Amino acid sequence: MVIPSLIERKRDGGTLTPAEWRALVEAYTAGNVPDYQMSALLMAVVWRGLAAEELAALTDAMLESGDRLRFEGWATPRVDKHSTGGVGDKVSLILAPLVATCGVAVPMMSGRGLGHTGGTIDKLESIPGFRTALSLREAEALVRQNGVAMLSPSPEVTPADRKLYALRDVSGTVPAIPLITASILSKKLAEGLTGLVLDVKTGSGAFIPELNRSLELARTMIETAHRHGVPTVALVTAMDRPLGRACGNALEIEECINAFQGHGPADLMEVTYALGVEMLLVAGVEKDPAKARHRLEKGMQDGSAAKKFATMIEAQGGDPRILEDPGLLPQAAMVEVWRAPKKGTVLQVEPKRVGYGVIELGGGRSKVEDPVDPGVGFVISARPGDKAEAGEPLASIFAKDQAGIEAGMRCLSEAITIGSGKPILLPLISHRVTIAGVEELG
Amino acid sequence: MVIPSLIERKRDGGTLTPAEWRALVEAYTAGNVPDYQMSALLMAVVWRGLAAEELAALTDAMLESGDRLRFEGWATPRVDKHSTGGVGDKVSLILAPLVATCGVAVPMMSGRGLGHTGGTIDKLESIPGFRTALSLREAEALVRQNGVAMLSPSPEVTPADRKLYALRDVSGTVPAIPLITASILSKKLAEGLTGLVLDVKTGSGAFIPELNRSLELARTMIETAHRHGVPTVALVTAMDRPLGRACGNALEIEECINAFQGHGPADLMEVTYALGVEMLLVAGVEKDPAKARHRLEKGMQDGSAAKKFATMIEAQGGDPRILEDPGLLPQAAMVEVWRAPKKGTVLQVEPKRVGYGVIELGGGRSKVEDPVDPGVGFVISARPGDKAEAGEPLASIFAKDQAGIEAGMRCLSEAITIGSGKPILLPLISHRVTIAGVEELG
Repeated sequence: MVIPSLIERKRDGGTLTPAEWRALVEAYTAGNVPDYQMSALLMAVVWRGLAAEELAALTDAMLESGDRLRFEGWATPRVDKHSTGGVGDKVSLILAPLVATCGVAVPMMSGRGLGHTGGTIDKLESIPGFRTALSLREAEALVRQNGVAMLSPSPEVTPADRKLYALRDVSGTVPAIPLITASILSKKLAEGLTGLVLDVKTGSGAFIPELNRSLELARTMIETAHRHGVPTVALVTAMDRPLGRACGNALEIEECINAFQGHGPADLMEVTYALGVEMLLVAGVEKDPAKARHRLEKGMQDGSAAKKFATMIEAQGGDPRILEDPGLLPQAAMVEVWRAPKKGTVLQVEPKRVGYGVIELGGGRSKVEDPVDPGVGFVISARPGDKAEAGEPLASIFAKDQAGIEAGMRCLSEAITIGSGKPILLPLISHRVTIAGVEELG
Repeated sequence: MVIPSLIERKRDGGTLTPAEWRALVEAYTAGNVPDYQMSALLMAVVWRGLAAEELAALTDAMLESGDRLRFEGWATPRVDKHSTGGVGDKVSLILAPLVATCGVAVPMMSGRGLGHTGGTIDKLESIPGFRTALSLREAEALVRQNGVAMLSPSPEVTPADRKLYALRDVSGTVPAIPLITASILSKKLAEGLTGLVLDVKTGSGAFIPELNRSLELARTMIETAHRHGVPTVALVTAMDRPLGRACGNALEIEECINAFQGHGPADLMEVTYALGVEMLLVAGVEKDPAKARHRLEKGMQDGSAAKKFATMIEAQGGDPRILEDPGLLPQAAMVEVWRAPKKGTVLQVEPKRVGYGVIELGGGRSKVEDPVDPGVGFVISARPGDKAEAGEPLASIFAKDQAGIEAGMRCLSEAITIGSGKPILLPLISHRVTIAGVEELG
């Protein structure tokens, strides 16, 4: 295998064979292809894209580079939900236990905060004692026992993706749809799924803000997952404003606890139920969306979802008493109210600015090795379209010190626009994408 | 300077500022930018190209990374000729001493064989004793004294280009017009020139075979050189067949000696004179092309060019007696004649196949560290369009052993096509490109 000739072929718009992709990923993971050749090839992929066969082979090679969850001989359907990343997106924390109450196992490997977005793993780790670093064998046992486990991918899962992702991060080759697809799907396929539901975010706070590219990403992921025998459906959902009210790790756990008690924000619950319906359908445990929806609402109302959440927390070493007493969660030292600077309509709550604001408060990372302060963040009660009086409290800032409060005030003043007229908002759930095509919902 | 953000900007079709290019080249040369970032950026440049200001800044930064020839206070015009590389192209060996007899200094830094093409430095080193590794100060003194010196770039010349070229070679980022331009021009500008003439090869044996891209390369190089205050003119010449008859280091020196004695092949002499005319014009020592041509022809005929060649050889430690006795040049152990396999017309002599054939005989390198056998190669008397009888001798193979003879026979059988009809040939000199535009000649 002559690497420069592979690079040249991709550069000139050609394709590599599945065998070449496999050999390349294997050699790269083993340290036999230098980073400077791989980064040039990745840039050529950003430029030229990948044919469907190439993408399938790359995804497969990344999956095969490591170990995975194995559920051989277990008839229970296993479905995960993956979000492309947003601000205030705590859907997984409610959805995984909820769906697990409906006879569908949810083996969920999640990530940490990335860029301006929060990560499910960081949020879970704000629960005192909660362990996300499960071994694969331990996770398999918990999924079989409780129907749900939420973990960070162990080092033996897709080491090729780990190495490639680190290289992409420093070589300007992150936002390419085939590379994103291979990275996400190789990890999801390592969960031993029978079905997958994607929450593809669109709008200013999404990694891919443009709707047409969001749809392309959805289609590419669905097609590639189907090639690997995993039926997959995607919903395109709005990330032009934060989802729900809380942004920050422990604050989002608290919002989930409220949701289990019937007080979840409407937008958060709508997205959660819509994705849950798709999970039950793709799992095959329900055929009718209305019945699936009803079953999920019942699971929330009768307390079984909350109970499953508690079971999972306890199984992973966490303190389930947070469900009764959210005061056991890490608390910020200082709280300050942000008030409307003038009378008017809330026109915008810019999610990217809010997300970076959480990082400024210490609730996320600028560098991989940065520690995370779980207690800090924002609770933004103002929604685009709301009317506000001058001086009306619209949000709270949770910070560790006065400097944090001041940074948070600046952040919210930049993120929240109040004026006259009506906000222009994306539909909360705008498209449903299946292997058959795109359905407009919004 | 955040390197990934520079890569991303180029990737997305933006431009880097001249200050960013300077800082980047400086940091890369100092080892402070890793190869994996530079190779990704180079691939983004292959994709997106460079704006004229970017190319000028990159060229300048590469030039400034090292030392250069300095002729401050010397009024004599200094002009070099650069060829983009071909097979059998020994023009420089005749042209440099010839032009030096016309009151124009020629400080010529040349390269070694690259890909399928030969290199002037390898050819010169087949002259017993000839030193091409001159220091810059030594080269300056020789140019001032004799009007000509031919040398390989010393390590202190454009170290940035050296490092970047090695990276491009292994990362599939060689054939990009701006990168080629910056690489060539940074070295040429290090010669302290007052003018430059380019021989841009086109056709199957050129690194850029397509005419439109050859013209684009010519225009790009001319524009960039002018921005650096060096008036430049290019001729586009044919490389769909070898130039002259000899291909191989010592064999080409011998062909040059024949040329000095009035027996140069017509195509070689035509290209040599045409480029020489441009050199005298750009130097300002002649205004009229016909007069310039006459002066060059006279320099060949009256022996002054040969005398200058002898002076240069002697000044650089070589044995000038080769001009009287070419038998002093390295000789191949075995010679074999290649004969026309059938009656017909010579339709093609494929230069790339001939060039790789010289390498197979040991006359060029597959790897940088390979030694070069100076005596081997081909003398191909057949020209496209010639009639041949079956069994008629059309070429000679010079090899070190029987295996070489056999490889050479195979090579020529593949390279030389005999059939019926007429060959389709590019005009020997098809275009003249100046800062004012493109003039079609052929």
